[in-house]
Amino acid sequence: MNPHEPEEIPLETSPTHTAPVRSFQPTSGSYGWDNVAVLAYKPADTHFQGITRQVLFGEAEALASELRYFEIEPGGYSTLEKHRHEHAVLILRGQGRVLVDEAVYAIRPFDLVHVPSLAWHQFRADADEPLGFLCLVPCDRDRPQRPMPREAAALRAHSVAGSFIKL
Amino acid sequence: MNPHEPEEIPLETSPTHTAPVRSFQPTSGSYGWDNVAVLAYKPADTHFQGITRQVLFGEAEALASELRYFEIEPGGYSTLEKHRHEHAVLILRGQGRVLVDEAVYAIRPFDLVHVPSLAWHQFRADADEPLGFLCLVPCDRDRPQRPMPREAAALRAHSVAGSFIKL
Repeated sequence: MNPHEPEEIPLETSPTHTAPVRSFQPTSGSYGWDNVAVLAYKPADTHFQGITRQVLFGEAEALASELRYFEIEPGGYSTLEKHRHEHAVLILRGQGRVLVDEAVYAIRPFDLVHVPSLAWHQFRADADEPLGFLCLVPCDRDRPQRPMPREAAALRAHSVAGSFIKL
Repeated sequence: MNPHEPEEIPLETSPTHTAPVRSFQPTSGSYGWDNVAVLAYKPADTHFQGITRQVLFGEAEALASELRYFEIEPGGYSTLEKHRHEHAVLILRGQGRVLVDEAVYAIRPFDLVHVPSLAWHQFRADADEPLGFLCLVPCDRDRPQRPMPREAAALRAHSVAGSFIKL
């Protein structure tokens, strides 16, 4: 059984960030923190593979933005999507590639990724280690959009994106 | 001459974050990124030692929050201050200690620090390596306050804070 299987872990928990300092506490190969719950990435019917989500800062601290940590298992990938809100990402561990708009970029620890408004994007972990990254979003944000059939066809036919994406 | 001397580096530059991916590019011992300027921590008349500031995400990305990277040289410290806005911090490198309110905490890579509204706080790097951390703040925020004479006297007399702070 894959320990990151999203059906096994909750999608939401109450915010419990109370201590001023919460120590980094990796467990069984995954990054983790004191008093930070490991959550499902998304509801199980969306298209992704092997991702967990941890909210490091957000509602519990009355911030306008949320700082989340996502960890993608080796070979896994995030949902291909777009939305009006922007992503500000800093890679914490592992290596992989990311599609932003119409280009694919290699990513390594501490690289920065900016996903502009309404840009298609998808993260993929390399095969040999987890890809972990911080992702900053506004608390008040729009829902992600998946490609409509015509958009999916255009992405599949794209010279760069076509061979990268998982739909 | 100390290469981190704040007088030698600018306090502001125009935002220039244009590429979707900006690579991590440490130089001469300091963390750094493509297209991210190394800035002075504060105007030179405030009380701190050996800090640089880099704005990783913010105005250039039209975000409501700014994600900054601060690097404190070995033995250096940030200004002791408080403000209404909160800090959400993730340590990236090095070790040190932080005062939050009336307690001092040891901090190591990837630890999380939350500074509540109006809590006195000061970061100090251990003597042997730089302390580098991400700090998230709202773009629209109040100015930091330094201790008034009576507050400074109370802090100096405090059983925990007194032996830690640099004023």
